[in-house]
Amino acid sequence: MAMPVDLSHHLSTEARLRQPNPMKAIWKLTRRKPNMVSLANGDPHFSLYPIRKVEFEMASVAEEDPVATWRRGGPSAPCHKLASSTHEPCALPIQTGLQYSHGAGLPDAQRVVTELTNYYHAPSDHICTLTLGNSDGITKCFRLLGEPGDHFIADEFSFSSMTNVPLSQGIKWVSIKMDEGGMIPEELERVLAEWNPERGRRPHVIYLVPCGQNPTGSTLSLERRKQIYAIAQRFDLIIIEDDPYYFLQYDSPDHPTTALSTPFSTSFLSLDTDGRVMRIDSFSKVFAPGMRLGWITSNAFFHEALVTYTDSSTMHPHGFGQMLITEMLAPHGWQLSGFDRWVRSLRAEYHRRRAFFLDLFQREVAPTQLARATVPEAGMFVWIRVEIEKHPRYRADRRMQSRDVTAPRTNVKELMEELFERCLDGGLVIMPASVFALSADPKYDDMEDPVEDRLNYLRATFAGTEEAMEQGLTILGQVLREFFTEEQK
Amino acid sequence: MAMPVDLSHHLSTEARLRQPNPMKAIWKLTRRKPNMVSLANGDPHFSLYPIRKVEFEMASVAEEDPVATWRRGGPSAPCHKLASSTHEPCALPIQTGLQYSHGAGLPDAQRVVTELTNYYHAPSDHICTLTLGNSDGITKCFRLLGEPGDHFIADEFSFSSMTNVPLSQGIKWVSIKMDEGGMIPEELERVLAEWNPERGRRPHVIYLVPCGQNPTGSTLSLERRKQIYAIAQRFDLIIIEDDPYYFLQYDSPDHPTTALSTPFSTSFLSLDTDGRVMRIDSFSKVFAPGMRLGWITSNAFFHEALVTYTDSSTMHPHGFGQMLITEMLAPHGWQLSGFDRWVRSLRAEYHRRRAFFLDLFQREVAPTQLARATVPEAGMFVWIRVEIEKHPRYRADRRMQSRDVTAPRTNVKELMEELFERCLDGGLVIMPASVFALSADPKYDDMEDPVEDRLNYLRATFAGTEEAMEQGLTILGQVLREFFTEEQK
Repeated sequence: MAMPVDLSHHLSTEARLRQPNPMKAIWKLTRRKPNMVSLANGDPHFSLYPIRKVEFEMASVAEEDPVATWRRGGPSAPCHKLASSTHEPCALPIQTGLQYSHGAGLPDAQRVVTELTNYYHAPSDHICTLTLGNSDGITKCFRLLGEPGDHFIADEFSFSSMTNVPLSQGIKWVSIKMDEGGMIPEELERVLAEWNPERGRRPHVIYLVPCGQNPTGSTLSLERRKQIYAIAQRFDLIIIEDDPYYFLQYDSPDHPTTALSTPFSTSFLSLDTDGRVMRIDSFSKVFAPGMRLGWITSNAFFHEALVTYTDSSTMHPHGFGQMLITEMLAPHGWQLSGFDRWVRSLRAEYHRRRAFFLDLFQREVAPTQLARATVPEAGMFVWIRVEIEKHPRYRADRRMQSRDVTAPRTNVKELMEELFERCLDGGLVIMPASVFALSADPKYDDMEDPVEDRLNYLRATFAGTEEAMEQGLTILGQVLREFFTEEQK
Repeated sequence: MAMPVDLSHHLSTEARLRQPNPMKAIWKLTRRKPNMVSLANGDPHFSLYPIRKVEFEMASVAEEDPVATWRRGGPSAPCHKLASSTHEPCALPIQTGLQYSHGAGLPDAQRVVTELTNYYHAPSDHICTLTLGNSDGITKCFRLLGEPGDHFIADEFSFSSMTNVPLSQGIKWVSIKMDEGGMIPEELERVLAEWNPERGRRPHVIYLVPCGQNPTGSTLSLERRKQIYAIAQRFDLIIIEDDPYYFLQYDSPDHPTTALSTPFSTSFLSLDTDGRVMRIDSFSKVFAPGMRLGWITSNAFFHEALVTYTDSSTMHPHGFGQMLITEMLAPHGWQLSGFDRWVRSLRAEYHRRRAFFLDLFQREVAPTQLARATVPEAGMFVWIRVEIEKHPRYRADRRMQSRDVTAPRTNVKELMEELFERCLDGGLVIMPASVFALSADPKYDDMEDPVEDRLNYLRATFAGTEEAMEQGLTILGQVLREFFTEEQK
């Protein structure tokens, strides 16, 4: 497996120790001769599966705007049936789809995600490995690369379901400051350049959500992506590009009324000449989260290591999802053009939802002048800045009082906790920034402007129902008014 | 969570370090008030899933012998359609089944496997956690319990796809001698009692396949199970009971012609009064391997730890399998009685296959007097002893020659490698014992009778087609004859 750049030193001890499943070598021998007879495998014969057909009633994509037609039509909307079957012709028959298969996925299913990846990203020399969804994929990357004592890099506000994962491996996070455009490349460079070796080896892994970042909704510009990639090359980083919102990219907030003409942004994978990007894709946001199916696109060497790991853990992705995507891209299915029509129509739908949310925000929250919404260019989240400095009990002299030069300067944290409780009392659950904040290490990090003083944000989604948005933002406006005037309900 | 016996000290460092997903605490708050509005979760609305129905064409279980009817009938066999749908009534609708869910599985799906577990095992006080199949379940147990430097216990011939798993965690295996009845309890006790602390801490985990053990096909008698459980209590072991062949139990070889009247054997889970058994179940052998769905039954404390681990790795099982099993056990589905009829009919089918295999063996291999088949009481494998002592080049004086008192006494290993190659040349793939053998540690283990001298076994399956069995055993008989007379083809 040729890699443009040798990146094998990034593998964790565990990944190096991992041996291929010894039975696999034997299974491969069944292919040594054309008519090899096998008594080797405990594979139940497909005639003993109690399932002979799985049929998916999918949306029709023949329409101009398939998502709108599908939603409006409900049970009578035109549909496109896809099926895997034992006895009827199909792209991935039951006897293959529901048998034991390969860690990377069945060749037919792997071809589907490869075709999608090539179409949208045209990677230089990468291979796709199916996963059981984003979470499974990212977890496997962390295991593949992380050593106890390592530091990984992420945005200072990051998706905590994921940043929580490697902590039990003994890995710590180093956070990089963000602005409205996401991670600030100069900050990343500074942290790496000034790395103190006493702290452990310099970080070699960076975790990023480039489009509609979770929780801030920010999207990295092409310029920033190029800068970050160059830094990754200079400091020999592996980039884990977690991009579930790739297909949900909207027009820039400066031109909010234009048609959705913006092309999808250039991914890190597309920029990757070295093989140092591991891109994580998922069907959760464009199809359904319960599918638990996704894929990793990586260099061939990491691909092999991922397959070996999968052989020794989840074994292989489930057949149902592989059937669905294989039939979907088959000539009798949606095909690639149909998938593209679906995701473009879906982004129009979310674009509509974003507008609906922002209009409501303008009506219910903005007039308070106590919070501002950042307009996201992608994803499902609006990052709301609470103008906490206006609160009568806001204090910025805490550090002076405590005489600890690394302590927070303000009481933002406490006030935001109060606000969160007030929201709950008012009947609204909204995500507080504190859940996503990665704390700095006072011993090594720049504590001039600690994240604890910037917790005055809330993450709200426009993925739910219009009713939830209506009610939720009305409550938020009301609670803010009461909280800032210290009225008790 | 009350445990009859405190077993919390068995958790690995990693499991102790693992924190619950911080976002979960927020999600739970949505239940604090009856009409809580949530803007918290990035959950795509179900009206945006391009799937409104998943239909499974399942076997009808109304028949006396549903498996036979299903196989004979092919595409025209009576079927039982089950479906999860957005708009039509069903047990697990699409909007729930394909949404994000819980690490332990959706409550409805969890109830299904709990009902099955209670019916067959009536555990004293255990909880079921859904998994992505046996391999995923066992891997998670190993991670939960294993520390680098630990030793785990297994049969001297064990399923190497699984024993391979924890090696990368820095865990070693200690093998226990077996006879035709499986693991010998006295040997287990001896190894534990004589444990040399220089070797590390005494093993605290034992991995067992109690029915139709893979690869030897042996089944532990109730007597042995009770002995092993008592030893586990005395030496504080956690038992990982991997039991995929539970439903494939046949009559004892002494009464091979009786109807399948034998009740299913008493599992370790049924015997477990302390909460020290983690039982691993799977739908792979009774439904289809590609389903990748199974479950772990454990005490409540381990259950919580497994859920926390799942939240931080695979997230939750896929919706398709959960839909299938939930609809299957619903009033409009097979129900528990139908599932029971299916598995009993399935065991009759495998019983017939076992007889077919053994008849063929009698005809094609036994007359050579160069191999003997052990009749398995469960599972899908026949363990074939090759009478290697009859080979003209067999030697038992190797140890004398090598002057190494821990070396193998014989050249069994080399001869079996030759035989395996001859089988391949003849067009047959069959599993050699060497793939399953756990080597002893010459520094500490009893090397009187090393496993290397007992590699003269082959694992053959009767799960495949009759044609494969016919051809395979014919080749085996022929190859044995040639190999033992040193004829070259």
